[in-house]
Amino acid sequence: MMLKHGNTDIEGVDSTNACYGGTAALFNCVNWVESSSWDGRYGLVVCTDSAVYAEGPARPTGGAAAIAMLIGPDAPIAFESKFRGSHMSHAYDFYKPNLASEYPVVDGKLSQTCYLMALDSCYKHFCAKYEKLEGKQFSISDAEYFVFHSPYNKLVQKSFGRLVFNDFVRNASSIDETAKEKLAPFSTLSGDESYQNRDLEKASQQVAKALYDAKVQPTTLIPKQVGNMYTASLYAAFASLLHNKHTELAGKRVILFSYGSGLTATMFSLRLNEGQHPFSLSNIASVMNVAGKLKARHEFAPEKFVDILKLMEHRYGAKDFVTSKDCSLLASGTYYLTEVDTMYRRFYAQKAVGNTVENGSLANGHS
Amino acid sequence: MMLKHGNTDIEGVDSTNACYGGTAALFNCVNWVESSSWDGRYGLVVCTDSAVYAEGPARPTGGAAAIAMLIGPDAPIAFESKFRGSHMSHAYDFYKPNLASEYPVVDGKLSQTCYLMALDSCYKHFCAKYEKLEGKQFSISDAEYFVFHSPYNKLVQKSFGRLVFNDFVRNASSIDETAKEKLAPFSTLSGDESYQNRDLEKASQQVAKALYDAKVQPTTLIPKQVGNMYTASLYAAFASLLHNKHTELAGKRVILFSYGSGLTATMFSLRLNEGQHPFSLSNIASVMNVAGKLKARHEFAPEKFVDILKLMEHRYGAKDFVTSKDCSLLASGTYYLTEVDTMYRRFYAQKAVGNTVENGSLANGHS
Repeated sequence: MMLKHGNTDIEGVDSTNACYGGTAALFNCVNWVESSSWDGRYGLVVCTDSAVYAEGPARPTGGAAAIAMLIGPDAPIAFESKFRGSHMSHAYDFYKPNLASEYPVVDGKLSQTCYLMALDSCYKHFCAKYEKLEGKQFSISDAEYFVFHSPYNKLVQKSFGRLVFNDFVRNASSIDETAKEKLAPFSTLSGDESYQNRDLEKASQQVAKALYDAKVQPTTLIPKQVGNMYTASLYAAFASLLHNKHTELAGKRVILFSYGSGLTATMFSLRLNEGQHPFSLSNIASVMNVAGKLKARHEFAPEKFVDILKLMEHRYGAKDFVTSKDCSLLASGTYYLTEVDTMYRRFYAQKAVGNTVENGSLANGHS
Repeated sequence: MMLKHGNTDIEGVDSTNACYGGTAALFNCVNWVESSSWDGRYGLVVCTDSAVYAEGPARPTGGAAAIAMLIGPDAPIAFESKFRGSHMSHAYDFYKPNLASEYPVVDGKLSQTCYLMALDSCYKHFCAKYEKLEGKQFSISDAEYFVFHSPYNKLVQKSFGRLVFNDFVRNASSIDETAKEKLAPFSTLSGDESYQNRDLEKASQQVAKALYDAKVQPTTLIPKQVGNMYTASLYAAFASLLHNKHTELAGKRVILFSYGSGLTATMFSLRLNEGQHPFSLSNIASVMNVAGKLKARHEFAPEKFVDILKLMEHRYGAKDFVTSKDCSLLASGTYYLTEVDTMYRRFYAQKAVGNTVENGSLANGHS
């Protein structure tokens, strides 16, 4: 797009790391705005992926999305950059080793344990940094909302329960006497035991229920409706929060947890303010139009979805084909693939914008 | 390595963009150090690739390398971040569309034109920013050295000649009367014509010869000796300069031009100072030990190289194999692949360090 309009003096390339890629790009872009090499322009971060799975139980959890974020100074959604905890480890929980296939190899049980271990580690680092800088203990009471990477909602519930259990172990102020009693039987579990203990999982989620409804539930709309979106998932959850609560977010702290298999994870903190038009929270929510976009989706029978995935399998990494001429289901203004030629070169067109008959096309090569 | 030593609270993921990836990682890392999210630790940038080609004329230009850079404040090699010109365009000059093969598809002529067009565009942006901030015209006389992405030396010579031609067209102070006379016949060429004109290429390189010997030749040692290194190439050229000129670099400006096919390019400026031990230029040159490393290489017959590439082709994207037990040619301390199991999981070992008999091994999974 920017190249099309003659703006070729731009920086920034793909940040690649499973579901964490978008977070890495966001951090890189924010750092750029804060650095001496920033030249006053806005940065643009695009997190996008399609989450597709081979036939089997994971397939219905799939989804696809793109989230774009405009980055600049004096933003209504601001980083508290010093409060940040990361965790990297080497794991084969979810990976795509077969270069001929778009489908991942997933070890579901390992992936969930990796996620919770990374969450624990990030929360520990996050709390330590907060406590060092603020001189007081952090607890989940110190943030209004918690937003998680959301491959499926059950994991989000488990994750928030896990933070509550962490606060219990840390003897944090967020845990009242009733909660302490319910969690006491699990206080002697080792770390490894605690990841496998279903009674603890259940008790934590029970104890966390009221806080979950207040601090997490408003973030779950889009992930529940769309399914997994890999690197867009966390930001779709955050967009859900903006959609649901934009009138109440000014002055509030929101904690985000980003996780990418392999694995890399970060917990970080945002502080929101009302902002100035056009970058006010209410206008952002209005422009995003989450309700309208969800409503504009088209419903397909599962058999049709399976057919489409078969076509995608066939075309993954392929050359010398043209795509369907039917773009009636695309939103106006959408860029779409028309052809991959014998040299694997890709050609795109743009669906007419609004009511005009203009139909742009993107030539191959220099544009 | 850092994970092995228990340091898991780290950020930063792969920056992917052909030969430009390392430059993107370097910019990201420098921006991090300058940002509010920096926590006082050093950053580490690793640029690495193996440049291998299918059988044919490009194969002998291949090579492989890794360059690591330690990033922190008050460095002896400092960015002049405001002087930077970038250029992005959409081109199929060099790409790897066949996911089953490590070999690229290369349009040699297009690639060279793309490189020179990107160089022109970056230099134009670079000069415009310099002139806006400094209030005077920039010319190649304003930098002591020029370092280029160096897939093969002939292109480096052409590139510097092209900058001289740019200075001629801009009527810059670096071009004396003799040079003006020699380049005058080409002053009316269109941009496109000028990329194809062999007489201009020859005349530019003749005019540039003395300046090339002074400002570029000291950067060419490693690329000439090792061959193409993709994303490590530019930094291997810069390492050559540190090796050759470390006693004379304090106070000097060095301009670097990074190019990645596809395409993304940036021209940027460094200002060097003597630095403090251990980060003095002389100690950096000593630790790099370029001469020693070049001397420590092993010579193979071309047939043996072809055999090794055949094995690599066979194993590219493959699973369920073990590697040769013979690591006699590896430097001490080298980590090397020992096995890819049936699940595509990779296992590594470390060759004993120095004279000790210790032989570490990296287990799969959490480490």
